[in-house]
Amino acid sequence: MDTEYETPLFFHVMEYAGNADTDVIDMVSGNPDWEPPAALREGLHEYADGDPDQFQYPPSEGLLELREEIAERRGVATEQVVITNGAGEANYLAMARALERDRGIEIILTEPVYPYYPGKTTMLGGTTNFVETAADGQLDPDDVCAAASDETAAIVVNSPNNPTGAVYPRETIRELVAIAEENDAILVSDEVYDHFDLAGRFASALGFDSDHRIVTNAFSKSLAITGFRVGYAIFPPELVENAKSRHMLVNVAGSRPSQYAVLHALRETGPDYYEQNRDLLRERVETFTDALDAAGAEYTTPQGAFYVMARFDGYPGTLENVERLIDETGVAGMPGEAFGDSRGEWLRFALVSPRVEEAAERLARYFE
Amino acid sequence: MDTEYETPLFFHVMEYAGNADTDVIDMVSGNPDWEPPAALREGLHEYADGDPDQFQYPPSEGLLELREEIAERRGVATEQVVITNGAGEANYLAMARALERDRGIEIILTEPVYPYYPGKTTMLGGTTNFVETAADGQLDPDDVCAAASDETAAIVVNSPNNPTGAVYPRETIRELVAIAEENDAILVSDEVYDHFDLAGRFASALGFDSDHRIVTNAFSKSLAITGFRVGYAIFPPELVENAKSRHMLVNVAGSRPSQYAVLHALRETGPDYYEQNRDLLRERVETFTDALDAAGAEYTTPQGAFYVMARFDGYPGTLENVERLIDETGVAGMPGEAFGDSRGEWLRFALVSPRVEEAAERLARYFE
Repeated sequence: MDTEYETPLFFHVMEYAGNADTDVIDMVSGNPDWEPPAALREGLHEYADGDPDQFQYPPSEGLLELREEIAERRGVATEQVVITNGAGEANYLAMARALERDRGIEIILTEPVYPYYPGKTTMLGGTTNFVETAADGQLDPDDVCAAASDETAAIVVNSPNNPTGAVYPRETIRELVAIAEENDAILVSDEVYDHFDLAGRFASALGFDSDHRIVTNAFSKSLAITGFRVGYAIFPPELVENAKSRHMLVNVAGSRPSQYAVLHALRETGPDYYEQNRDLLRERVETFTDALDAAGAEYTTPQGAFYVMARFDGYPGTLENVERLIDETGVAGMPGEAFGDSRGEWLRFALVSPRVEEAAERLARYFE
Repeated sequence: MDTEYETPLFFHVMEYAGNADTDVIDMVSGNPDWEPPAALREGLHEYADGDPDQFQYPPSEGLLELREEIAERRGVATEQVVITNGAGEANYLAMARALERDRGIEIILTEPVYPYYPGKTTMLGGTTNFVETAADGQLDPDDVCAAASDETAAIVVNSPNNPTGAVYPRETIRELVAIAEENDAILVSDEVYDHFDLAGRFASALGFDSDHRIVTNAFSKSLAITGFRVGYAIFPPELVENAKSRHMLVNVAGSRPSQYAVLHALRETGPDYYEQNRDLLRERVETFTDALDAAGAEYTTPQGAFYVMARFDGYPGTLENVERLIDETGVAGMPGEAFGDSRGEWLRFALVSPRVEEAAERLARYFE
């Protein structure tokens, strides 16, 4: 095998936008533009003044106090929690663990898809099987049931969803866990946007106890620190040891200053912080979709996460068109084609800029 | 394949030592006990006060300024440098990249071996082929030449060496590069202890330009920050893109506070810092080996790195004996058997404690 896996386009588009001559409103990445909690900065200062031994390897699976804090919040045993280098590594470990069970090499993904998932699948020697979601991004468990078989190693879902903004109801999650069990597969539930459940409908896969589900998450979005790289995966007890081994063999351990600051922030940050950020996003959704209405664009109103997918007549969501939009309007989005064929006509805009209104106006003017 | 790779014992022994009732002198890990440079702490404070956008994803391959700083110091193009989550990820990427070339699945390792290498090899689907080193830890290139074949994907070496303390002369490195070229394999040269070249004999594989060598390194040891997780790999131009893809698909990016602090420390720290730490280690080597002489133990005097391997008559280097030594003398080392059969009689002691003299005295008393 010479490498066939593809690199997601995010960094490429961000770079293109960054190199543009014009003033560009960045709606490419999933980078929050709001403040991290004050306690996060405090935690980092505190760490910077610590003893030299604090600067050395944390336990491979992460700082014990951080794992305990997460375990208590999520209602699982500390031993099930592995701190990872962001949700990226958490998903990598979860998918690798599912494939290592040797119960098939197929990974079921939803379409449109977060592009890291197929990339990871191919890198790990698996094959992809896409299940299409509805226009509003909802996933029909019957479609997953029909797609699942002996060959299925894992079903990977993401709710609140990037890019569609769909939040799967409790019943969907329950059925997905059952389908994983029936097919001796693993449900990998990526819940990194759980704090951005804008409509109050989020259900975690942790609500359904099972040896067949792994839950992944991170503090990247919830604490506005995508660059810190602190995430976690919660494994069933019988799957956790080998996942810890892979984590150790790939990364040895995660970054201790980051873990320390996150622990401090978790302990000292109240629910107001998260609620404020949800309010901000709700406002931005309204502002942006109002302007899309004015521009006559089709779009989905997100129930969660950071993104609005929009479709402008005669302007398909290709990389070329995204670059043209950057050059001609100064608005940078992601090409829908990056998320699969089903959204090839669409563009994805991340609401992570204070200039969401201006961006929408620029788009409205351009597509008039 | 259900997982067969083994987890290195380091964390296990560290935990055992940490849980002991007695006062234990920790000579297990490769964790420096000396101060990081003052500029590292400054850098972290500076970062903690940065704008929110500084808290978001760095470029996947690492902060550009850090890659430039490394490229300039190492005399390579910036594009060849990938910042990794420590040397651990750097070696993982390098070995994966060698295997992906599809020129064989065998990885040649030296014996005694740093136990992460065989663990990574097995995890990546490769097979190991061990070449024994001499009593003083030196590697005979003729032995590597005899072991290498069409099946060889990579030759992984580590100089200054963990655990033997050997530093390979320039001629050895030159021949290893040539052997990699002749067999269409990749020399992976792990140079993480390059700043701890105690006898002034270190030669980097970067001194021999080749499309067949990857050099890995980290700031974990040189800046006394094993917990920060900042390392790097330098790839030949034609191998770097796929390595960046794997890095992105596994980790997305590395920790930005860590990278920022390391950049600041590199810029502001003069050669004195490194020289002081070498002096400290040279003193500890002398103190410890003097006491080993007094105890009648066999040992090798390290030319570099942090470790002394010692052999006490009738006390083989098993995990059981290491645990007994912790309980009965309060000195924690690593079992020689963790590094392969050839050093099954030996124990490894890391000189990362200010109590090296006391540790040696305890050992002398115990083995008298």
